[in-house]
Amino acid sequence: MSRLTHLNERGEANMVDVTDKSVSERSARAESAVRMSAEAFELLVAGSNKKGDALAVARIAGIQAAKKTSDLIPLCHPLALTKVEVEFELLAEDNTVQVSSYCRLAGRTGVEMEALTAAAVAALTIYDMCKAVDPAMVIGPTRLLEKSGGKRGHWRPEEVTHG
Amino acid sequence: MSRLTHLNERGEANMVDVTDKSVSERSARAESAVRMSAEAFELLVAGSNKKGDALAVARIAGIQAAKKTSDLIPLCHPLALTKVEVEFELLAEDNTVQVSSYCRLAGRTGVEMEALTAAAVAALTIYDMCKAVDPAMVIGPTRLLEKSGGKRGHWRPEEVTHG
Amino acid sequence: MSRLTHLNERGEANMVDVTDKSVSERSARAESAVRMSAEAFELLVAGSNKKGDALAVARIAGIQAAKKTSDLIPLCHPLALTKVEVEFELLAEDNTVQVSSYCRLAGRTGVEMEALTAAAVAALTIYDMCKAVDPAMVIGPTRLLEKSGGKRGHWRPEEVTHG
Amino acid sequence: MSRLTHLNERGEANMVDVTDKSVSERSARAESAVRMSAEAFELLVAGSNKKGDALAVARIAGIQAAKKTSDLIPLCHPLALTKVEVEFELLAEDNTVQVSSYCRLAGRTGVEMEALTAAAVAALTIYDMCKAVDPAMVIGPTRLLEKSGGKRGHWRPEEVTHG
Amino acid sequence: MSRLTHLNERGEANMVDVTDKSVSERSARAESAVRMSAEAFELLVAGSNKKGDALAVARIAGIQAAKKTSDLIPLCHPLALTKVEVEFELLAEDNTVQVSSYCRLAGRTGVEMEALTAAAVAALTIYDMCKAVDPAMVIGPTRLLEKSGGKRGHWRPEEVTHG
Amino acid sequence: MSRLTHLNERGEANMVDVTDKSVSERSARAESAVRMSAEAFELLVAGSNKKGDALAVARIAGIQAAKKTSDLIPLCHPLALTKVEVEFELLAEDNTVQVSSYCRLAGRTGVEMEALTAAAVAALTIYDMCKAVDPAMVIGPTRLLEKSGGKRGHWRPEEVTHG
Repeated sequence: MSRLTHLNERGEANMVDVTDKSVSERSARAESAVRMSAEAFELLVAGSNKKGDALAVARIAGIQAAKKTSDLIPLCHPLALTKVEVEFELLAEDNTVQVSSYCRLAGRTGVEMEALTAAAVAALTIYDMCKAVDPAMVIGPTRLLEKSGGKRGHWRPEEVTHG
Repeated sequence: MSRLTHLNERGEANMVDVTDKSVSERSARAESAVRMSAEAFELLVAGSNKKGDALAVARIAGIQAAKKTSDLIPLCHPLALTKVEVEFELLAEDNTVQVSSYCRLAGRTGVEMEALTAAAVAALTIYDMCKAVDPAMVIGPTRLLEKSGGKRGHWRPEEVTHG
Repeated sequence: MSRLTHLNERGEANMVDVTDKSVSERSARAESAVRMSAEAFELLVAGSNKKGDALAVARIAGIQAAKKTSDLIPLCHPLALTKVEVEFELLAEDNTVQVSSYCRLAGRTGVEMEALTAAAVAALTIYDMCKAVDPAMVIGPTRLLEKSGGKRGHWRPEEVTHG
Repeated sequence: MSRLTHLNERGEANMVDVTDKSVSERSARAESAVRMSAEAFELLVAGSNKKGDALAVARIAGIQAAKKTSDLIPLCHPLALTKVEVEFELLAEDNTVQVSSYCRLAGRTGVEMEALTAAAVAALTIYDMCKAVDPAMVIGPTRLLEKSGGKRGHWRPEEVTHG
Repeated sequence: MSRLTHLNERGEANMVDVTDKSVSERSARAESAVRMSAEAFELLVAGSNKKGDALAVARIAGIQAAKKTSDLIPLCHPLALTKVEVEFELLAEDNTVQVSSYCRLAGRTGVEMEALTAAAVAALTIYDMCKAVDPAMVIGPTRLLEKSGGKRGHWRPEEVTHG
Repeated sequence: MSRLTHLNERGEANMVDVTDKSVSERSARAESAVRMSAEAFELLVAGSNKKGDALAVARIAGIQAAKKTSDLIPLCHPLALTKVEVEFELLAEDNTVQVSSYCRLAGRTGVEMEALTAAAVAALTIYDMCKAVDPAMVIGPTRLLEKSGGKRGHWRPEEVTHG
């Protein structure tokens, strides 16, 4: 592990060859969060109740972003995701929307970037919904929570604490 | 300011009408960051020296993502950006890459989402470059640093500290 | 008016030159509909109540499709829409979802195709949501309801009845 | 079949997990139509003869739209289509262009939405070609004609009549 | 002119700031060519006669590619093209398809890249149409023939010969 | 081989059916080139040294374009590339940047168009980087150097000389 896998020995970026890797079931979970003012949080909660679309917009943005990952992250392989899920938890004590994402497929390479992209874009969309009320919202930490499949098998960070 | 601007009185999402806003010069700065292990940070620094493409890949990903903002964030207006810039600062003491972005145009609505999207996608790309070495990297805080133009004029958060 | 405007005298497709047209306010309304079985209609209504995302997904799909019009319809000019709205009416007597769309901008060419594309893709998305229950749903009629702006000014079809 | 497959028990939209479905050959046929004035129909026929590109533009738009289905319909899985076909029939007695589409692949989920999207976008493109002559054209009915493959096997609507 | 305009003083890529440039009418013409075997050329000519779609496919591909230029060329500004035209000349003596493109808009920056991209992608599409017959086809020379508008005014290469 | 494979017997374009072809390993190499003035060449070389991003931008543009091939070339099948590589050789004696590309996957159809698209778009990006210095640059010849896999097996042009 003496250099970054996306750079060749001359430091040039390239899309790693995964042609000969075996197809296996792979999945990943990631999270992000948006911390906001009490006023923004209350309006977001109100906009998510009673048929309000607020979180639905962010959920769909995250799902669609997962499908665009190889267009956004230059060295990612195009992948045919077979499952994408984005969920939100409203943490009233912190005026925070916790975002979690889950991606899965049977393929030759992992779906960490897809899960992270889904979480990050869902969080950006929540920012967009609330920015007129509170432009000082803070997005993150965005990170991988779990991945499975592939040569390395199951992975979880040693500790995961919220922010 | 009794509800979110992107939702109508029935809570339905819509793209706000900015047709009658005047065209004015608008700009925004945003930031994100990627905190990683010492090993990953050293490899990234090495991959950015001597013609290495590491940070160039992330910079271009951020610039291209800014141009895709209205495709990623469902209620954003399509905007013809006239300037996008993405820069990195390598903070060795924290094993952190600090990402900053700047967008500008003459238009009817602000470019905050474009600047935030550029910073967030550049950070995701750095994660992608280094993830084989350290999947536990943490992205964020991602936030707006400054915006100017439009009806509200200049805005900065009350305090900005590196998270 | 002796030939189609998108074809030159040799019958070759081209994107019409609108460079010298003046920028003016233009808008368009369009509609579509999805007629389905009673069972599918009831499930859709249920899925739209109590925070259900069913119609929100279709609304956002329509809004995003309006922004992709020039990518979908080969001879359409790229336009910076300043307003997109998609609405639904649940017609219980006909087990039908009526879709209506509205687009607006200040530009050199009209937004009829954007409004029609928004309505058509929102209707396709409703089909997608309900297709496991009723694959025999019928989409349409999809048509223009009104347009204004530009050289020809205001236009409405001579009669509009729900097909 | 007590709820829509794309919504979970809380009514939240998600991309259904098809990872464990088996790969099998799947195909679908769909149709749409554009009914127009006699004048528009005659010009379209003329623009399709003698090397005229009129229908070729619509055919290609439909083929390319099929490939964009998962980008347009938020909860559709990305699919690697192995066949897309779009055909037109000019029905002079009705001043109508009948559109039919056919999609096929070996995959984990069906291609109904791809066939419907191809037909719908081809019809929208015909509208675009003729709209300067007749903005009152009516698109539809757009519907599925046949699908095969997958767990449910072959499906055809009980009766198909041109609407 | 001591360095490339897209690189700053540290050699980092960025999208040049054109916010303060004035909006003016700008246009560009470019060309490309595909030289092929006599057999492929004859089939292409046949496929373009009698309602054959061969060149129509390439024409539309070129027009659509012009609209995607800022998505393909990382440091290009997004531009709202108001005219795109792609034409072909069949040079029987050389078994060559000559491609020419023309783009125009009223904007803050030139459309050279849009014209070149249209010509290059139209040529690639001709290659695609004929590659089963002759994979040894040669594309090019692709070059700018003329540009006008902006600070530098009109430009033509000193000599243009078909390479 | 009496007609173009992408056209049916009526001359209509369609995406060829490859559903029943077997999945096999396929690869392709292509090349392009950009010939420029001595001044532009020197600046490009300087912009590629010492951490300069010049060639990195073009490399990434080529890699991302390979992934967009089926969106650019209307009758190409969507393919899940498992390897893309773009390389440059600086030919000082000719003031020429030689571009070479390599694509690979396990799939049902070849990757020639992907390799050609990567080379062509990388060359266009180099043009974009240098166009302020020398708008008269010439791109090409762009051509296939080698392909392998599929029914026809290995292919190389009879002779390849740099144009």
